[in-house]
Amino acid sequence: MNELNGYDIEDLEVGMTASFSKTITEADIILFAGASGDNNAIHINEAFARKTPFKGRIAHGFLTASTISAAIANRLPGPGTIYMSQQMRFVGPVRPGDTVDAVVTVKELVREKCRAVLQTVCSVGDRVVVEGEAMVKTTSRASRV
Amino acid sequence: MNELNGYDIEDLEVGMTASFSKTITEADIILFAGASGDNNAIHINEAFARKTPFKGRIAHGFLTASTISAAIANRLPGPGTIYMSQQMRFVGPVRPGDTVDAVVTVKELVREKCRAVLQTVCSVGDRVVVEGEAMVKTTSRASRV
Amino acid sequence: MNELNGYDIEDLEVGMTASFSKTITEADIILFAGASGDNNAIHINEAFARKTPFKGRIAHGFLTASTISAAIANRLPGPGTIYMSQQMRFVGPVRPGDTVDAVVTVKELVREKCRAVLQTVCSVGDRVVVEGEAMVKTTSRASRV
Amino acid sequence: MNELNGYDIEDLEVGMTASFSKTITEADIILFAGASGDNNAIHINEAFARKTPFKGRIAHGFLTASTISAAIANRLPGPGTIYMSQQMRFVGPVRPGDTVDAVVTVKELVREKCRAVLQTVCSVGDRVVVEGEAMVKTTSRASRV
Repeated sequence: MNELNGYDIEDLEVGMTASFSKTITEADIILFAGASGDNNAIHINEAFARKTPFKGRIAHGFLTASTISAAIANRLPGPGTIYMSQQMRFVGPVRPGDTVDAVVTVKELVREKCRAVLQTVCSVGDRVVVEGEAMVKTTSRASRV
Repeated sequence: MNELNGYDIEDLEVGMTASFSKTITEADIILFAGASGDNNAIHINEAFARKTPFKGRIAHGFLTASTISAAIANRLPGPGTIYMSQQMRFVGPVRPGDTVDAVVTVKELVREKCRAVLQTVCSVGDRVVVEGEAMVKTTSRASRV
Repeated sequence: MNELNGYDIEDLEVGMTASFSKTITEADIILFAGASGDNNAIHINEAFARKTPFKGRIAHGFLTASTISAAIANRLPGPGTIYMSQQMRFVGPVRPGDTVDAVVTVKELVREKCRAVLQTVCSVGDRVVVEGEAMVKTTSRASRV
Repeated sequence: MNELNGYDIEDLEVGMTASFSKTITEADIILFAGASGDNNAIHINEAFARKTPFKGRIAHGFLTASTISAAIANRLPGPGTIYMSQQMRFVGPVRPGDTVDAVVTVKELVREKCRAVLQTVCSVGDRVVVEGEAMVKTTSRASRV
């Protein structure tokens, strides 16, 4: 572990997994609309959204997926990690009140470059809503010596 | 254009471009920390961040990149678009007070499936901070007939 | 009263009381999570919280108790007061949508030091949720002469 | 550790310590004023605050102290802990831009009741700004058997 209590590259093994969960509320959607500037009617206009195939407002895909950022930053590899890239597919809607479980799993390690590829999946219950892959740079004990 | 004033697939041409710009403030970072659950020290602890190579707090990569979501939802293709996927590389830091320009450009069209591939670039002045690619599904005049 | 319309020590009597009430919403909980950094699952994860003895998300105790700060600052002794200390016991849960009544009552006065001890109780309807005691320093007419 | 990765009573020893740090920004103060209802001029009115002995706006004592809640919930004893009480003395001002370090230290353990008394200190650099004591209830391996 590094001094912030995050994992060093030496601590990681393929298959390690961690999760972060959060209920996505109306308030989150409004705050995210404000912070991002994305005020798409499907997210903020219930009267409009009710007439779409979604039958009501849904969360921004980016908001849902941001729980991946929390899982990486808070859990695995945790504090000290630098986020290099994220690929994500938005495959199902998230509604206000849904609880999103973001699960990250170590898929590949490039130890000499301190890099880890993580599989990243967000689900609501049994239903996958965002899936993809992240690349992160971790701390290493070797570089601290 | 569709009834929401967004582009139909028939309106799009490769090379069309649009942008959305937003100053990322301290307040945005705190709201994003609340909505995402990501309270990484690099985003919320100036004393810690000053001692890192970044020399101060930086915005969450996901927060910066969420301006792409605004550019797509508000501008090109605009209202009515469904976001299918986003790939993004975080290539430079964004600090509180930086203004992010998110530029989206039509790169490829799959007209029969109403799909568009967009190049997505976020910059602060001349400096690219996030780069990547989005896939979206647009409305079509054909399907409204 | 002082120039800010707060009570001077000379205006206070043991037994005087005032209250401040606020509905604690989901939005308050998310903003508080962002401002404090406390993203405990019991506050932000409904699926998790439902399986605990609380049967659902509850507000941060500190958020509920912060209505005491509002009661003191806005009402009794009001503007001009300096908050010296607070003791609080979290004795019952507050759920999103609950309206908290913070009641402060003058319990003891140390006039020569401009100090007041206040009993501080937060309730939701008939149910006490936070109880404790504050010590504050007030303005005084004597010191303005 | 419990299933949320927090400490059980069996894991704790007197003297164990952990910290959580956060820069208190203008945005935090405004969000906290909104969530708590405490809109005291000393926190939100720079023109007024400049004429006081503080020479400018200061953070709400409750906002500063709420980093203790984050240290307890996120670090020690961490997830699964129930907050029972907090005593705090506000002993120095915190200004927008100050980074608060909340340090919690196990002071006393009542193992048969799963209770821990924690010393709680918030500092800005070398200067103590809030000091006090918390009582928490932790999870236990014994009760899971």
